[in-house]
Amino acid sequence: MAQRFALMITPVDADEQRADFSDSFTAVNPTAPALSVGELSTQRGDGVFESIGVVDGHAQEVEPHVQRLAHSAKLCDLPAPNLEQWRQAIALAAAECGPGEAVIKLILSRGVEHGPAPTAWATAAPASDFSAARTDGIRVVTLDRGYDLGAGERAPWLLLGAKTLSYAVNMAALREAHRRGADDAVFVTRDGYVLEAPTASLIIRRGERFITPAPSGGILHGTTQLSVYEYLADQGLTAEYATLTVDDLAGADAAWLVSSIRLAAPITAVDGAPLPVDAAFTAALNAYLLSPR
Amino acid sequence: MAQRFALMITPVDADEQRADFSDSFTAVNPTAPALSVGELSTQRGDGVFESIGVVDGHAQEVEPHVQRLAHSAKLCDLPAPNLEQWRQAIALAAAECGPGEAVIKLILSRGVEHGPAPTAWATAAPASDFSAARTDGIRVVTLDRGYDLGAGERAPWLLLGAKTLSYAVNMAALREAHRRGADDAVFVTRDGYVLEAPTASLIIRRGERFITPAPSGGILHGTTQLSVYEYLADQGLTAEYATLTVDDLAGADAAWLVSSIRLAAPITAVDGAPLPVDAAFTAALNAYLLSPR
Repeated sequence: MAQRFALMITPVDADEQRADFSDSFTAVNPTAPALSVGELSTQRGDGVFESIGVVDGHAQEVEPHVQRLAHSAKLCDLPAPNLEQWRQAIALAAAECGPGEAVIKLILSRGVEHGPAPTAWATAAPASDFSAARTDGIRVVTLDRGYDLGAGERAPWLLLGAKTLSYAVNMAALREAHRRGADDAVFVTRDGYVLEAPTASLIIRRGERFITPAPSGGILHGTTQLSVYEYLADQGLTAEYATLTVDDLAGADAAWLVSSIRLAAPITAVDGAPLPVDAAFTAALNAYLLSPR
Repeated sequence: MAQRFALMITPVDADEQRADFSDSFTAVNPTAPALSVGELSTQRGDGVFESIGVVDGHAQEVEPHVQRLAHSAKLCDLPAPNLEQWRQAIALAAAECGPGEAVIKLILSRGVEHGPAPTAWATAAPASDFSAARTDGIRVVTLDRGYDLGAGERAPWLLLGAKTLSYAVNMAALREAHRRGADDAVFVTRDGYVLEAPTASLIIRRGERFITPAPSGGILHGTTQLSVYEYLADQGLTAEYATLTVDDLAGADAAWLVSSIRLAAPITAVDGAPLPVDAAFTAALNAYLLSPR
């Protein structure tokens, strides 16, 4: 499934106010060369990104995504993005998406080596079909992330709270999960606490309580997890943040990986041991996540 | 200092034998668009690389570099590179370098998203002037890498032994070092052992013994460190691998960060505490590293 729309963005100072940023955008052929080999995104994974779900042309959770882009940029010492410029880029990309599900990616790179400024672009493409994962669920394996629970707060240069372009480890963890016959991975600290998946947040249910690992320097705060927590609050359900062990996950009454594009995927097994699935609840949750937010 | 030569490479199967791979190379303008926005190197830092020093048109340590490229590719489940093809690409790039010092970069990317094959390219550019670092030395700070000493061997998906394009943490560590008034960083495990610098290997001298942290799953085996060890052996000096603590570094009789482009930079201070510098030995070492190898 190829990219079908791409927009190069000339970053503008964060405090510059304009009604219309369209002259800072240039549509480019998404399959043609658009980036030079000096790009530090490509040489160093040096930049930050966001993936935004689009349903029938409506971009979801735009504000949390642009806010997180700014947060990631700050952690990486990149110039603060102009949020209104990015909102307008998202609107342009969403308008290209048509019916059905799509994905918009935002990329803010350090720029060209020895260059004067960051480079930035947005793409839009049809989303893969995740209906099987949402309905039938996914098997996960737990994989050691190497860090202890306090690493992110102790060592901010590890960038654990930033959504950087340096995702080689995340991709390697997914390949390892597939090698083990699973669909996805859940990262675990050296000291036995569950963190997050390579490209998703974890939520478990224990009795009537929903719990996600406490966001700290070590976990990327998930935009979809925040949306799910709003939904749970609206339903009068208890949604909390807490430190969770691998045993907490394996002994949960239900668990999901939630992310912007695949949405809520119920976990059917952890390291080969089955986990209960609440099909009706999951269906309602995904219906909410597919509604305009 | 802009890139001045770039060659796109169409990867060929590792076992394909040809006298001449030139029809798999396309010279491109290094400052013009050459990569599409779908490139997984740029979206995910998903690929591997090498930086090769060039002196007066002679590419240094070509064989260790292409071997390490292949090793990194294997750790990242990328198709094995055809080493002879890469050697020929390096030769073409080196021929463009002219007199003085230059740097050749090799990049092997996962390819375009949903695409059929990896993408690959090589660039050549003049090197920065590192004579001050080689002569006057560098101040380093130790920075927590978050991992314990066994993480790399225990969790190969952390890719600690691969030279991946996901260098955002390495770049963040360098910025943190600069914020602390230092020139470079030395990564330290959670349990207090020194590992390596973000883009260099560490060698210390204790009495008449030269010691570098034992290469394991947690350390990238440095090509320049290997060259230095050959030089030391030729001089009849003792060069070893061992587990080293921060105190071992702080109490060393001398220490260097060695890398392909900056070569041997003597460490003048560790976390603000001065370290002795052996100027004559360092000058001889750099003269060796600048000779054709």
